[in-house]
Amino acid sequence: MTFTERLRSIEQAQNSLLCVGLDTDATKIPAFLSSHENPVAEFNRRIIEATREFVCAYKINLAFYEVLGPRMWDTLQRTLSFIPGDVITIGDAKRGDIGNSSSYYARVLFDELHFSAATLHPYMGFDSVEPFLRRRECGAFILTLTSNPGARDFQYLRVNKRPLYEHVIRKVRGWNTEGNCGLVVGATRPGELKKIRDLVPSMPILIPGVGAQGGDLEKAVRHGCDRTGFSALVNASRTIIYASAGEDFADAARRQALEMRDTINRSRERFFTP
Amino acid sequence: MTFTERLRSIEQAQNSLLCVGLDTDATKIPAFLSSHENPVAEFNRRIIEATREFVCAYKINLAFYEVLGPRMWDTLQRTLSFIPGDVITIGDAKRGDIGNSSSYYARVLFDELHFSAATLHPYMGFDSVEPFLRRRECGAFILTLTSNPGARDFQYLRVNKRPLYEHVIRKVRGWNTEGNCGLVVGATRPGELKKIRDLVPSMPILIPGVGAQGGDLEKAVRHGCDRTGFSALVNASRTIIYASAGEDFADAARRQALEMRDTINRSRERFFTP
Repeated sequence: MTFTERLRSIEQAQNSLLCVGLDTDATKIPAFLSSHENPVAEFNRRIIEATREFVCAYKINLAFYEVLGPRMWDTLQRTLSFIPGDVITIGDAKRGDIGNSSSYYARVLFDELHFSAATLHPYMGFDSVEPFLRRRECGAFILTLTSNPGARDFQYLRVNKRPLYEHVIRKVRGWNTEGNCGLVVGATRPGELKKIRDLVPSMPILIPGVGAQGGDLEKAVRHGCDRTGFSALVNASRTIIYASAGEDFADAARRQALEMRDTINRSRERFFTP
Repeated sequence: MTFTERLRSIEQAQNSLLCVGLDTDATKIPAFLSSHENPVAEFNRRIIEATREFVCAYKINLAFYEVLGPRMWDTLQRTLSFIPGDVITIGDAKRGDIGNSSSYYARVLFDELHFSAATLHPYMGFDSVEPFLRRRECGAFILTLTSNPGARDFQYLRVNKRPLYEHVIRKVRGWNTEGNCGLVVGATRPGELKKIRDLVPSMPILIPGVGAQGGDLEKAVRHGCDRTGFSALVNASRTIIYASAGEDFADAARRQALEMRDTINRSRERFFTP
């Protein structure tokens, strides 16, 4: 089964396009967890337990774990062990290096930590992502049009009358011989998302930026899904995991995740007839 | 003192533009080290001791350390502790994320591990590198024109009659208000390196690719240095650290580093009159 097929079957089984970003900041988790042996892992465990019914994926941004220093590895492994096997795990590592080094990054993310997918920078070209493409069951999400203000610096530059990010898409289509490539497109760019979906009718699109970054959820669904209402992954991090700063944080996260899943599904019903 | 000033003073004091890449692969180090408590750190310690006289910098590619899993942090910290304080340390991490996450990566590399510089992807634009620019004494080397074959995929695309990498350079010049930006330009692109040096007369340029990747050392020096024969960092990894696979590996690395430093300096004497 290719990654694209696997994602689709998980989205169907879970009836959800929601991806929860476990961007857990050790300094922002409720104080009562601080006595736990590994507060970040315990926070994640409770968030996962509370939200797992409502998601198709969890995304883990490595920056928040590297900052833990010697506790990084244990915290990552524990967190991943709490995630059910029937849900996608995305290592949001944004890696990209010459082939030799890239193969080590792929080994860490796919063979050691067992993520089902990773995010990658396109700038260094094919050999920098190729080690991630060798496993057809693992996804490689290439940064295409990002949600941050700096996206304007290079991603929109015109190359042969088309924005740079379109050239990235065209290359990624060529790299997708195993059905395991995806794109990252920020929810803050709904008009562009629509055009991008036309260019890749069935490729998975990871869509961050709906929560704290202000992207429009309905448009993310409407423009991000394939024609059957799948293949988009709508990511929310801070709005879910920090829905409450108190002891009820997991319940609050659960309510928030449920509401977001349902809002996404209402949009899907409206725009995509089964 | 800005990073650019610090690099120059170290290059002068050490009389060297050589950067040794500690891309240490645990499976490639001599067997007799395997009984050591931390073979990679011990290998690095001996390499550093043997080569420290002849270098201005060490570059550590994080991919080779992440693959160590739980031993990553200890191995990195030990390795960094062996490097004398009067030499630059480059965290070759190739990071780049939205501002929030990027600030965590900067914290890891600069505040926790105390690297003096880091390598960064440009694709996500200003806010993705900005957290690395806040410390004027720390360097931010932006990937510009890389040494790998995949560089052809995007970096040469024409934008307003100029290659994309030139647009990256123009942006980086604008970001360099604190004198702490640098560029990464592969030694496999000597003609382009020459043009790039004209665009940034005094900015540090990190030049990988002279060894295993086949770049021309003399041209890297001739075209990569500023007008006074400084500000280029010529990196060699595998050719130095794996100069011998036997018990004499450190001696072999020493000879190789000495020879490379001298070859670089002969080119500098030829092309740059003091």
